Amino acid sequence: MKLPIIPKLDQEAAQKARSRQEVLTKPLGSLGYLEELSIQLAAMTGTARPDFSHKGVIVMAADHGIALSGVSAYPREVTPQMVFNFLNGGAAINVLAKLAGAKITVVDIGVAYDFQQKEGILHKKIAPGTKNMLEGPAMTRDEAERAIQVGIDTVLTEIETGIDLVATGEMGIGNTTPSSAITAILTDSPVESVTGHGTGIDDQHLSFKINAIESAIRKNAPNPNDAIDVLAKVGGFEIAGLAGVILGAASRRVPVVVDGFISGAAALIAAQLEPATKDYMLASHQSVEIGHAVIWKHLGLRPILNLGMRLGEGTGAVLAFQVIEAATRLLNEMASFEEAGVSDK
Amino acid sequence: MKLPIIPKLDQEAAQKARSRQEVLTKPLGSLGYLEELSIQLAAMTGTARPDFSHKGVIVMAADHGIALSGVSAYPREVTPQMVFNFLNGGAAINVLAKLAGAKITVVDIGVAYDFQQKEGILHKKIAPGTKNMLEGPAMTRDEAERAIQVGIDTVLTEIETGIDLVATGEMGIGNTTPSSAITAILTDSPVESVTGHGTGIDDQHLSFKINAIESAIRKNAPNPNDAIDVLAKVGGFEIAGLAGVILGAASRRVPVVVDGFISGAAALIAAQLEPATKDYMLASHQSVEIGHAVIWKHLGLRPILNLGMRLGEGTGAVLAFQVIEAATRLLNEMASFEEAGVSDK
Repeated sequence: MKLPIIPKLDQEAAQKARSRQEVLTKPLGSLGYLEELSIQLAAMTGTARPDFSHKGVIVMAADHGIALSGVSAYPREVTPQMVFNFLNGGAAINVLAKLAGAKITVVDIGVAYDFQQKEGILHKKIAPGTKNMLEGPAMTRDEAERAIQVGIDTVLTEIETGIDLVATGEMGIGNTTPSSAITAILTDSPVESVTGHGTGIDDQHLSFKINAIESAIRKNAPNPNDAIDVLAKVGGFEIAGLAGVILGAASRRVPVVVDGFISGAAALIAAQLEPATKDYMLASHQSVEIGHAVIWKHLGLRPILNLGMRLGEGTGAVLAFQVIEAATRLLNEMASFEEAGVSDK
Repeated sequence: MKLPIIPKLDQEAAQKARSRQEVLTKPLGSLGYLEELSIQLAAMTGTARPDFSHKGVIVMAADHGIALSGVSAYPREVTPQMVFNFLNGGAAINVLAKLAGAKITVVDIGVAYDFQQKEGILHKKIAPGTKNMLEGPAMTRDEAERAIQVGIDTVLTEIETGIDLVATGEMGIGNTTPSSAITAILTDSPVESVTGHGTGIDDQHLSFKINAIESAIRKNAPNPNDAIDVLAKVGGFEIAGLAGVILGAASRRVPVVVDGFISGAAALIAAQLEPATKDYMLASHQSVEIGHAVIWKHLGLRPILNLGMRLGEGTGAVLAFQVIEAATRLLNEMASFEEAGVSDK
């Protein structure tokens, strides 16, 4: 497949933002990470005064063959049920997106349910769920590439309609399992160090989950230097789609706020396919899912929030929108020492 | 002085909020600290579905005699200059309060400048700055009590006009110095372990600042079991005022979001005067000023944000308003499993 070209960060815009931070009415550095963030956002967007008025979260939903083997605390029908909850405005992501003024785009990229022509969903199903990776590859290489392309196309369409800041979100019962598999392989970590309780399995089920992941990796033997092979053998459609979202957004200089553990696995895929995508990623929060910290460390990203969240859907990313908006507003709206007649040091 | 009575937390309201969290469409606990926060806010406000539609930040401004001895990186005239910046909308707190939809109340409780009848300021000056604590007590006991009363009266008036969530803010060149003195005394910590670079002094000036604080404590010998004595001898008017804001808000079940290091010193005073005020405090953020973590630990509070901020003005507290609002909106607006037709575990 042909990957989009990722532009270089705009160091001139960053320098202009940095110079402005130096003259705003506060001790230099006293806004801490908010100052750094505003400078990074200038570099990403190529504008000295970045401003995000059209935020969006793309929620990719899909099912997983392995969910039928008992790796999750919830039954698989919860995936389509939660998609309906997104459409009806009752999920956590709806509440947080409304608060942040962000648009939600729900994509069926592989749910094991026929939504027919239901409005409010982008119908881009690759297949009704992946195959069980305990028995063979989760998907074919062609399916993995098509799922990435769905993500690229989806985000590029959103950007054409005006979206200027993107969050990644997902729904898929069982999807911490492929995420742990991907993280173990791409960060070269032991499976047990990147596998957690997901939506809430007990310790006995956790041992089963770890064994299942190790067994799936042994059986499918994905090539750790080939991200698409990893995705196809032990991944998921929503993870592939979100990797595409990251690739597409980065290609248009649109910052991508990466959500929780599953989104983090997608970020690992995107970064391996095109390392420059890392320049356009922001780590929204630190999940309690243990593999998440491993991902941020591997990508060299600092999480904005640390609130003990582990829900997914894009909730942490959309919550972080508010800190990002604070950072840009401060850069744009504060008075300088000269304008305000305040003495500098 | 007569302190206001602090009501007990409402455990019944907390239990109702907790029960609701159990049926909302997410794995229980997956919203992490946001869930705990919503339950705490229910207990504080005495309502099972807390909702804050009228947020406010009270910014107390005052000067410090010790600022004339070279403990700060900035000249003392910056205090009134920044007050004018607040009135003109150019400071960081203005930008963040606008974003959070919060009202700013600016109080001159002791600035060494005559604002005359300037509109937009509450004129409640106790004296034009404290005395230099290197030479004797910063203020009299009577002044300390009057400054606390100013804070109580100010917040009660705001609450009468409808404010339902309060942030503490301050401005006062030199005010990390009395804050370190108070923190050292009330948490029984060595001065150097709670004294930092403030607005940006270098290491040489930091040694001078530490020596000055130790010297002021030796000279004035405040009684560590008498918070008003500590405040009078090594405190400041805005710190006293904010202690009053905390006492007043807690007396009316209005949660108080405590900002940075100076606000933290005020929280120590309030907590020593009335330990139950701690039940109504929320720790907004973790400042890089080293004494701040000591204060949170002493008060048993967990900071909501950790963004390397050290500006004061109420900036960290008003930024945390957004996380608090997210927590209450999630509790109030999410659908239950039953409402959404989603299968529970």
